[in-house]
Amino acid sequence: MSDADTPQRSIFFLSDRTGITAETLGATLLTQFDERSFRQSTLPFINTPEKARSALEYIEHTGRASGLQPIVFSTTVSEDVREILRDSSALFLDLFDTFVPKLERALETKSEHREGRAHGIADEATYRSRIDAMNYALTHDDGVGESGYDQAQVILVAPSRCGKTPVCIYLAMQHGVYAANYPLTDEDLEGTGLPRALKPYRDKLYGLWIDPERLHHIRSERRRGSSYAALPQVSYELRQAEGLYKRHGLPYAETTNKSIEEIATLIMQDKDIRRRSF
Amino acid sequence: MSDADTPQRSIFFLSDRTGITAETLGATLLTQFDERSFRQSTLPFINTPEKARSALEYIEHTGRASGLQPIVFSTTVSEDVREILRDSSALFLDLFDTFVPKLERALETKSEHREGRAHGIADEATYRSRIDAMNYALTHDDGVGESGYDQAQVILVAPSRCGKTPVCIYLAMQHGVYAANYPLTDEDLEGTGLPRALKPYRDKLYGLWIDPERLHHIRSERRRGSSYAALPQVSYELRQAEGLYKRHGLPYAETTNKSIEEIATLIMQDKDIRRRSF
Repeated sequence: MSDADTPQRSIFFLSDRTGITAETLGATLLTQFDERSFRQSTLPFINTPEKARSALEYIEHTGRASGLQPIVFSTTVSEDVREILRDSSALFLDLFDTFVPKLERALETKSEHREGRAHGIADEATYRSRIDAMNYALTHDDGVGESGYDQAQVILVAPSRCGKTPVCIYLAMQHGVYAANYPLTDEDLEGTGLPRALKPYRDKLYGLWIDPERLHHIRSERRRGSSYAALPQVSYELRQAEGLYKRHGLPYAETTNKSIEEIATLIMQDKDIRRRSF
Repeated sequence: MSDADTPQRSIFFLSDRTGITAETLGATLLTQFDERSFRQSTLPFINTPEKARSALEYIEHTGRASGLQPIVFSTTVSEDVREILRDSSALFLDLFDTFVPKLERALETKSEHREGRAHGIADEATYRSRIDAMNYALTHDDGVGESGYDQAQVILVAPSRCGKTPVCIYLAMQHGVYAANYPLTDEDLEGTGLPRALKPYRDKLYGLWIDPERLHHIRSERRRGSSYAALPQVSYELRQAEGLYKRHGLPYAETTNKSIEEIATLIMQDKDIRRRSF
């Protein structure tokens, strides 16, 4: 955090709908600069000239207050709204302004100026499939309801607390992928065969692995001092799990320093799962 | 879907990391054109000159096969990688190429050319807060463990199947917001007061409402022909719920034709919850 005395430059993510694309665009670009010096806000649903003028006023105000030119990352389809905001003394970077003319030339067609179709229910079937996939992930979390493995596109396999659940839910929410998971039990880890419930689904299995120190730390947050969290126990489980993955030729990913998004991307790449179209 | 005979133009979302930003950027722009004529693929982890050359070859191949110029939406920090891809006969639209020079001028500083910090674990604390928020949402789903309402930033209140759970999980995953929920029971709906468990948390409450026909449809998918799914029952619950929201001055949102992302954005705006910085 910067000092209260140091003026911060205002960054706005502005959109006629949720602002999610503007945030993603802006946040990715700002990773290349020192983010601590920015004060970031989202201005969603700016979809009328009135709201645009009121947003403009607010943006100008922050610029005068800090003495620093504000920056606006915008994804606004309405030309009326953009025209008002272009008058701003802020640096106004609009996704459509920037790229649509190039796309129109390449596609030899005019764009449709349809408002805010991203992140809405533009395509009811695609949207429903994401919700269905999420309900699926929640119902088939931690091996509950194994009868549903038939429907799974991928089944994540790992010892407890290696990150199966968040990755499954992310795969469902972001990509509409049906992802189930199966926690390896002590009994599974003692044997050399695939757990019985998984045998019919070998091609869907994907293992997760994590550094033992990290898993020890994660489990200790839940149950400090327990044998479940103890480093020897954790190391044993991970060694056995890795043996199982290798013995049965299962693809697996090391998750220690990876985000949910990165792990999900790896899984989809390795298992050749196509992302839903947006 | 277009006919198998009609050649489709290839669209690539290319990145040195997950490709999520490139997908978001490209998908938002493509909403302005007829998406059915595109064949979309993601090329993640293109982070070496070798991978860039192999991606280039693949992109060129699809262009020759379809006879249509491919389009590449790219978010690639590495100048080496971009230089190789710029040689393509595809329309190459790179986020950094396009916007970083403008930002450097406005900020009067050079960018840091740091690779793939978006969607990774760039900021360990922010990342952990998202995971913690997700675990929180999963543990406090459907009123289970009300003892945790103290920690909630918002508590969603609604009859069963109005969309509380997916919205809570989205708020956690995307924004690191602690969101709990409370399903209104028959007993809650018969009375006029706030449910007892919610009384201490009035300022955190946010209601959801949905069109009765829609809720009837959703519940029927679960339990066709049940009294739970019957239109009179559903209408009664929604009328009582709306009465409750109004009587106690709770903000609430109509969710019928809104996506999870839109509902989450409305809630954060109404409750003035700040998004986590990315």
